[in-house]
Amino acid sequence: MIIETLSTFPNMYDSVMGSSMMRIAQEKGIISFCAYDLRDWTYDRHRSTDDDPYGGGAGLVMKCEPIFEAYEDIAGISVPDRIPACPKTGPAPAFRDAVAPKVVFLAPQGRRFDDAYATELAAEERLLFVCGHYEGIDERAYALADHVISLGDYVLTSGELASMVVIDAVVRKLPGVLGAEEGPVDESFTSGLLEYPQYTRPASFRGQDVPPILLSGNHAAIARWRREQSLARTVQLRPDLLESFELTSADRKFLDALDA
Amino acid sequence: MIIETLSTFPNMYDSVMGSSMMRIAQEKGIISFCAYDLRDWTYDRHRSTDDDPYGGGAGLVMKCEPIFEAYEDIAGISVPDRIPACPKTGPAPAFRDAVAPKVVFLAPQGRRFDDAYATELAAEERLLFVCGHYEGIDERAYALADHVISLGDYVLTSGELASMVVIDAVVRKLPGVLGAEEGPVDESFTSGLLEYPQYTRPASFRGQDVPPILLSGNHAAIARWRREQSLARTVQLRPDLLESFELTSADRKFLDALDA
Repeated sequence: MIIETLSTFPNMYDSVMGSSMMRIAQEKGIISFCAYDLRDWTYDRHRSTDDDPYGGGAGLVMKCEPIFEAYEDIAGISVPDRIPACPKTGPAPAFRDAVAPKVVFLAPQGRRFDDAYATELAAEERLLFVCGHYEGIDERAYALADHVISLGDYVLTSGELASMVVIDAVVRKLPGVLGAEEGPVDESFTSGLLEYPQYTRPASFRGQDVPPILLSGNHAAIARWRREQSLARTVQLRPDLLESFELTSADRKFLDALDA
Repeated sequence: MIIETLSTFPNMYDSVMGSSMMRIAQEKGIISFCAYDLRDWTYDRHRSTDDDPYGGGAGLVMKCEPIFEAYEDIAGISVPDRIPACPKTGPAPAFRDAVAPKVVFLAPQGRRFDDAYATELAAEERLLFVCGHYEGIDERAYALADHVISLGDYVLTSGELASMVVIDAVVRKLPGVLGAEEGPVDESFTSGLLEYPQYTRPASFRGQDVPPILLSGNHAAIARWRREQSLARTVQLRPDLLESFELTSADRKFLDALDA
């Protein structure tokens, strides 16, 4: 998968994209990453990517022209020679022959990001994230959007950070990125329930003991206990998740007993 | 505000915390930041912070012992000489005389993060984020939690990244961090509605024109248009936000006309 970003603070990606899972996914060739600097598509002395809003008001608005031109160069729609060198992956535009990217904006009015959406994006060949920073983006730039994503009901200054959240959630779904040791199958949301509590050594710590059943070696009983913990936690903290979850008859019996 | 993090990839914070708003907030003395390495509280040759789960299963679980010991050192509860040097802010434990931190975990079972929650956290003097990476955390460590926060219904490999999202949303609320040019008052959620569309130069771009009213100079009409755009967008995309929003009689009239 090719993952590209377009923003005014491309260096903000360095330490996240250069560490841990993201570094490994690149070393294994599962993803190629490039953070473009939107200022490379400006032509004035100050390399301005934003301007005052029409109609007045505080705040600046990110201009649509550099975004359109950048998209066209990155996607190879304009003259191929204008495809920029990627500052991170070297001088050659490695993605020249790739499919055009699906364009992702992050904005409060977007579709709420969740596990299913991450799975959907993980099936794409190439994603280009367009990220504001401090300011909003000229409405006309959204004409380029294939996806408008909202992370939640809060405001971030750094669109770069918001894009990294989506990239993390997507990349971990790509085959070969996480080993068996790192990718628990029972994790929250993918299973449809909140995850059961986990424990590791020591068995007793400052008066808090690991539930004895986990030390029993009885695998069927442990599996049942974990399922019930997931159910109990979900019904208590996120009952909405149960609405779209298929309960087994044993699950129903357990939840009925909880209720009683 | 003192912001600290405890994780196994403390360097992941470098490029976000060292850029833009976060850098400025530190330079202005509005926040002090330190990323602790959880491995500094391990005593084995491999500096292990995780171990196999009790009861079996794939994945590793982050041990509770180093987290408790780190908390006590960082909060100054244990022998003061054991307070670690902060690798980023220099050799002196600058926070030795500060109040004990409020401890924040990020987990799917937590309270959903939103704008109001960010405002609440912005009133704290000191926050310590405990971040898993790949794995879950031994359930007993949550005894330390003042806050358990969920960013949304998706799974991230990097707890560091999740904490940076919360930190960004909180720090931008601290007085003096954002200038008037960077912090629009009308932004989504803080006003209770989605933001109206924004435009900047040029007035016409590839057949897409700025709505003429924004060029009219009629400030009252522009304010009304923006309000109506916010209302229309909110009712279309996030009708749930209107449930807790106090509509004026003009708002009601506009929405009734939309319906008709």
